[in-house]
Amino acid sequence: MARTRLYRKGKLEAEGFPIADVSDHLGEPDAVVWFDLCTPTRADLDAISEELGLHPLAIEDALHASQRPKLDVYDSHMFLNVYATHFDGDTGRLESVEASAFVTERALVTVRTSESFSIDQVQRRWDSGGALAEHGVAFLLHGLLDYVVDTHFEVVEAMDDQIEKLEEGLFHETLPGPDEQRRTFELRKSLVNLRRVVAPMREVVNTLFRRNEIIRDSTLAPYFQDVYDHAVRAAEWTDSLRDLVGNIREAHMTMANNKMNLIMKRVTSWAAIIAVPTMITGFYGQNVPYPGSGQPWGFWTSTGLWVVAAVVLYTQFKKRDWL
Amino acid sequence: MARTRLYRKGKLEAEGFPIADVSDHLGEPDAVVWFDLCTPTRADLDAISEELGLHPLAIEDALHASQRPKLDVYDSHMFLNVYATHFDGDTGRLESVEASAFVTERALVTVRTSESFSIDQVQRRWDSGGALAEHGVAFLLHGLLDYVVDTHFEVVEAMDDQIEKLEEGLFHETLPGPDEQRRTFELRKSLVNLRRVVAPMREVVNTLFRRNEIIRDSTLAPYFQDVYDHAVRAAEWTDSLRDLVGNIREAHMTMANNKMNLIMKRVTSWAAIIAVPTMITGFYGQNVPYPGSGQPWGFWTSTGLWVVAAVVLYTQFKKRDWL
Amino acid sequence: MARTRLYRKGKLEAEGFPIADVSDHLGEPDAVVWFDLCTPTRADLDAISEELGLHPLAIEDALHASQRPKLDVYDSHMFLNVYATHFDGDTGRLESVEASAFVTERALVTVRTSESFSIDQVQRRWDSGGALAEHGVAFLLHGLLDYVVDTHFEVVEAMDDQIEKLEEGLFHETLPGPDEQRRTFELRKSLVNLRRVVAPMREVVNTLFRRNEIIRDSTLAPYFQDVYDHAVRAAEWTDSLRDLVGNIREAHMTMANNKMNLIMKRVTSWAAIIAVPTMITGFYGQNVPYPGSGQPWGFWTSTGLWVVAAVVLYTQFKKRDWL
Amino acid sequence: MARTRLYRKGKLEAEGFPIADVSDHLGEPDAVVWFDLCTPTRADLDAISEELGLHPLAIEDALHASQRPKLDVYDSHMFLNVYATHFDGDTGRLESVEASAFVTERALVTVRTSESFSIDQVQRRWDSGGALAEHGVAFLLHGLLDYVVDTHFEVVEAMDDQIEKLEEGLFHETLPGPDEQRRTFELRKSLVNLRRVVAPMREVVNTLFRRNEIIRDSTLAPYFQDVYDHAVRAAEWTDSLRDLVGNIREAHMTMANNKMNLIMKRVTSWAAIIAVPTMITGFYGQNVPYPGSGQPWGFWTSTGLWVVAAVVLYTQFKKRDWL
Amino acid sequence: MARTRLYRKGKLEAEGFPIADVSDHLGEPDAVVWFDLCTPTRADLDAISEELGLHPLAIEDALHASQRPKLDVYDSHMFLNVYATHFDGDTGRLESVEASAFVTERALVTVRTSESFSIDQVQRRWDSGGALAEHGVAFLLHGLLDYVVDTHFEVVEAMDDQIEKLEEGLFHETLPGPDEQRRTFELRKSLVNLRRVVAPMREVVNTLFRRNEIIRDSTLAPYFQDVYDHAVRAAEWTDSLRDLVGNIREAHMTMANNKMNLIMKRVTSWAAIIAVPTMITGFYGQNVPYPGSGQPWGFWTSTGLWVVAAVVLYTQFKKRDWL
Repeated sequence: MARTRLYRKGKLEAEGFPIADVSDHLGEPDAVVWFDLCTPTRADLDAISEELGLHPLAIEDALHASQRPKLDVYDSHMFLNVYATHFDGDTGRLESVEASAFVTERALVTVRTSESFSIDQVQRRWDSGGALAEHGVAFLLHGLLDYVVDTHFEVVEAMDDQIEKLEEGLFHETLPGPDEQRRTFELRKSLVNLRRVVAPMREVVNTLFRRNEIIRDSTLAPYFQDVYDHAVRAAEWTDSLRDLVGNIREAHMTMANNKMNLIMKRVTSWAAIIAVPTMITGFYGQNVPYPGSGQPWGFWTSTGLWVVAAVVLYTQFKKRDWL
Repeated sequence: MARTRLYRKGKLEAEGFPIADVSDHLGEPDAVVWFDLCTPTRADLDAISEELGLHPLAIEDALHASQRPKLDVYDSHMFLNVYATHFDGDTGRLESVEASAFVTERALVTVRTSESFSIDQVQRRWDSGGALAEHGVAFLLHGLLDYVVDTHFEVVEAMDDQIEKLEEGLFHETLPGPDEQRRTFELRKSLVNLRRVVAPMREVVNTLFRRNEIIRDSTLAPYFQDVYDHAVRAAEWTDSLRDLVGNIREAHMTMANNKMNLIMKRVTSWAAIIAVPTMITGFYGQNVPYPGSGQPWGFWTSTGLWVVAAVVLYTQFKKRDWL
Repeated sequence: MARTRLYRKGKLEAEGFPIADVSDHLGEPDAVVWFDLCTPTRADLDAISEELGLHPLAIEDALHASQRPKLDVYDSHMFLNVYATHFDGDTGRLESVEASAFVTERALVTVRTSESFSIDQVQRRWDSGGALAEHGVAFLLHGLLDYVVDTHFEVVEAMDDQIEKLEEGLFHETLPGPDEQRRTFELRKSLVNLRRVVAPMREVVNTLFRRNEIIRDSTLAPYFQDVYDHAVRAAEWTDSLRDLVGNIREAHMTMANNKMNLIMKRVTSWAAIIAVPTMITGFYGQNVPYPGSGQPWGFWTSTGLWVVAAVVLYTQFKKRDWL
Repeated sequence: MARTRLYRKGKLEAEGFPIADVSDHLGEPDAVVWFDLCTPTRADLDAISEELGLHPLAIEDALHASQRPKLDVYDSHMFLNVYATHFDGDTGRLESVEASAFVTERALVTVRTSESFSIDQVQRRWDSGGALAEHGVAFLLHGLLDYVVDTHFEVVEAMDDQIEKLEEGLFHETLPGPDEQRRTFELRKSLVNLRRVVAPMREVVNTLFRRNEIIRDSTLAPYFQDVYDHAVRAAEWTDSLRDLVGNIREAHMTMANNKMNLIMKRVTSWAAIIAVPTMITGFYGQNVPYPGSGQPWGFWTSTGLWVVAAVVLYTQFKKRDWL
Repeated sequence: MARTRLYRKGKLEAEGFPIADVSDHLGEPDAVVWFDLCTPTRADLDAISEELGLHPLAIEDALHASQRPKLDVYDSHMFLNVYATHFDGDTGRLESVEASAFVTERALVTVRTSESFSIDQVQRRWDSGGALAEHGVAFLLHGLLDYVVDTHFEVVEAMDDQIEKLEEGLFHETLPGPDEQRRTFELRKSLVNLRRVVAPMREVVNTLFRRNEIIRDSTLAPYFQDVYDHAVRAAEWTDSLRDLVGNIREAHMTMANNKMNLIMKRVTSWAAIIAVPTMITGFYGQNVPYPGSGQPWGFWTSTGLWVVAAVVLYTQFKKRDWL
């Protein structure tokens, strides 16, 4: 079933009709149309470009990965580029899926680069929008942006959880193994990449607001404001997470250093406990007539000496907490 | 007893009356009403929403944790979100309690997520407000913000104390144990989290000021300015604390490195003092006719040699401060 | 063949004519002329300066390397300075080639410092420009800027690939050798240098836009906006790459530290496994009548002792994962 | 003697009269009065508050330590809060003394929290002010601010000297001891604290300028501009000092690491020089008929071997600069 | 010869006349006068202050080192403070020489704190200025600023060269010695100090531009714009150099760590190669009847054992690249 919708006066009149019918609906004065293209070819886009009068640069941008959310305002339409995000807790990797949208007065065309950009979630938002649907394209646009910013938020929350888990494991006896290091590494990398798709969203929503008095003056305004607030929070939270990961990294380093110190102390102590008896028995191994050489009492002195030395060293080191 | 208040012309007329009576009072022309809801259900909020004409988005925000102080201005009312903070000196953890408020022309509704947001402290501020109470809702709002910013300040001061304690212990003989490390770690984490609830308060108070000429022109203005100053100071102080904790962390690292250096020097010295006699007695343990082998004077030379070696090494190392 | 072009009413009328003919064409009212000078002498520039009325400071700037993209607006013309970039993946080095341009109302003069600034690529852009060519000099300028920003983008993408490669090799067994270190070093250096030529491009395109209402109002506007977007993205991406390289560097350090820890543990374990038998045989080497001295059962006790000691130590260390 | 002054038409008419007389003088139309309160009680402040019509919040602020310079503008007066600073070169500690001031049209009241805020220095500035005294309260205020900013400057200069001393000691043979570390630590801490009282001074002087056209238009303007310049320079210098201390810290670390490397090399070398003879004499200590066992030439071979080994190792290590 | 000049209608009329004649020339309506004072006394400045109507604060600033470039605008004149810089490649030290200037409508007075501020270079710029000299004082001022910014540029270029040299030596076998470390240290310090005199130049030239419509509208405008561009580039380049030095420092650290790792590996390997034979001969030194004790074949087993052990260990370590 094609992903299409037709709204009239805030009512959903048709859904799932073929994309071919879109141009008929566009001819009707009060119809608002949405349809979705998933990984379209250049030919697909050229066709709708003609229908809707889209700018060739917007078509160009929809075809190529851009790696930065943006909103371009053309004379007769707008071009939106956004990224839905997903965080894989096991690998610590961020996945971001690009989607574009052409926004004309009475049509919204979403162009997804992959099915993993969940257009179902967007439709669910539209279905629960109630009377707001009468705002037409602006209403549809809000649903789209709301979904995108919510995915950013989910990622931020998932990362926060991951960081909490890393923190819990932090002060255990064992040092972080290569696995934890890899996860910390991936997390930091994901934060850098997340920032790249989250930070510009503020500007995107703000431009929409500033350039579009229809949105600014309508009852939709608080809803766009709400999306903006979410975008700001997601960006700020991302920055906080950076600090938290940095904090963990430094705690790791301090603990590794401490571990090293501890090992050094233990090694030294045991080396001494072994070296002193070796020195003493070395003395009694000389081929010179030392006191007690060849005598049973020589054995007792030797043995007594190193037992005492070992015990004294051991207790001393224990006392100073070196063992 | 319900947490409700009725003011009329700056006078507190009633207190503790049932929330059910609120709507009657709202009908009276010069009444200003406050009431508090602690962990309300959606139904509770829907009820008051109808009464006061609140925006569904504000209701949504009051129900979900938001993690960022903000002030949303709707057509007929404002929605405030703030965090009271508390610092637990023993664990080094920051606790922050969210509270929201709906602000209409003649009513203030506070919505707390937990009893640990001390509404008693807010009421105490209102009680000592004197003639300022005639400013109605703005006066009540000031009391609320004043309390919130004061809790931020208390946390900042408590953290400053903790940092001073960490500094005092810094140049003692012993290196910081895992306990101190954990506390430093938690402190840094708390600072990141504190920043998140403290930094946006400036903007909150500023928006209130900028959007609200009633506040700006009244005798309350210096009081809100005062809250703003406090918010600024709390934010700046938080940043200073970051620098101070960073300073401590780096001093820790330097000292751990020094300790390592010291241990290395000592280990080396003692290893030498033990290795040289071992080498000498090894010589006298050979089964070849070395000078003095099997002779008493051989014993005296051997013993003399290693005693001299040990003493010379010991004094040399002492002199160079290696032991 | 000289690199020259003559446009009239958006049509390419002539190409490759001698530079000497340029002044004739400039006399014709609707002609737009481009020509290119590669590593010109001062005399060359003085000649065209007279013809086009160029400012001596612009001539000065065209002759000297400036190391920063800029756009200077003079009364009768503009002076542009830009850098095409190329990334050598093998050495990790960035090469940047400077080019300048004098922009008058009806002429564009490009001045390249080396043939490696690919003017062919710029011409290809002009050839595919279609009807936009009627915008004359602004159209030519767009092609030039588009090429420059695209080279920046290519470098950024190439660096991103290199970073991914470094990341893949990160968690292998072997530590990064001097080769990888040198490449990381060069990459960081290249990023600093890239930033220097990429960051000011935003300002360059922006100035062009702000100071030039012809561009701002024409159908070229979205195209310059597009170049601006590219410049912004290249700059932001450069910053992200910095963070990613920093992340890699820190992972390197952590791993080197871990390696060190591991070596310490192994060394210590083996040292103990060797030292204890040495201590025991030392005991049995004493020239005193210890239990079993000179007796076969003495040999068995000695051997038994150190075999047991070695086995116990070995299994213990294995169990604790120290070996 | 009470710290009071009475100016009339730019002339100092009386000095040191009792504070009780102040209210009489305030009644005279062209009198400008200054008086100072050192650690006043709340009652003292309440008394003058009534006389001068001060705002309760200003009184509140004068009683409590605030930790941030600020200028509050009330309807009928201003409230100033500043910090004089002093740097103790021996401990590396920064001392900052708070002082407040109430500024009405014809009176300046300074409130000091300690005698170490040198009001004598302020008076000296007033005495050398000459004809500028005719500007009344603004003139007095300038003297106060000039003193405060000068103390900041003195601290910055004293810290700069301290840093130079640290730098001189940097490349000496010995590593920095705990004493130097503590001083570096305190210096960094003092820089953080200095920043807190220095940075807001720009804003304080700027607010004074912006809100006060009497100052802006008078011949005092360049003098306030001068104080502003000083405040800017002190703040910028503070930031430079941070960088310089950071530079020293990193040089410290590098040198400590190098020292460690050096020690490792020496330890290793000496260990080898001792271990090889021990190994050789161990060989000759075996109870098996090795070549030369029990023979004088066995002794000579043994001794020759280890002497040669020791000499070869020693010269090799010396040559590679390991000893 | 006194450093004085007299311009009339853009022509240099006199040069090197005594300063005493200056006041006569100032009386002539179309004369523009420059003179220079090197390390003047207060009396010298007071004399010219009277003549030119200079502000006492400007005189004060000219007498005291200020450490920050600035431009103060007084009613009847301006006061400029700048720093010429020089980089000593051998020591890595930055030298900066302060100079001030009083700028009235028809006179420029330069006040140098040392002869090393090369006024000859400034004069050379004036001499090559051609027709621009008709702009009088503004023309002279441009020559002065141009010289100052050029010295900044020379320092930046010299530092860049030094950094390249440090980079070349980076991946050689030997670690950086104390000499290179000192140079890196001084370089970083010089960069901090350079920033302090370079960064404010932008503001200085900008203020001149903004406050002075005579400059803004004249044909001098592009020349001041050019100085501004240079100042911006010098400041940006300084920041890049910081990053490059940081990059070098981190590469140093990584390499020192690697060296340490390498030493550890070698030490360990050799220790093992020596310890194992010692253990074996220890076994054969026991005074118990072990297999082969007192027998020639015992010697052969012993020797065989340790030779095999040593060879096996050596080849194993070689294979793993530990030796």
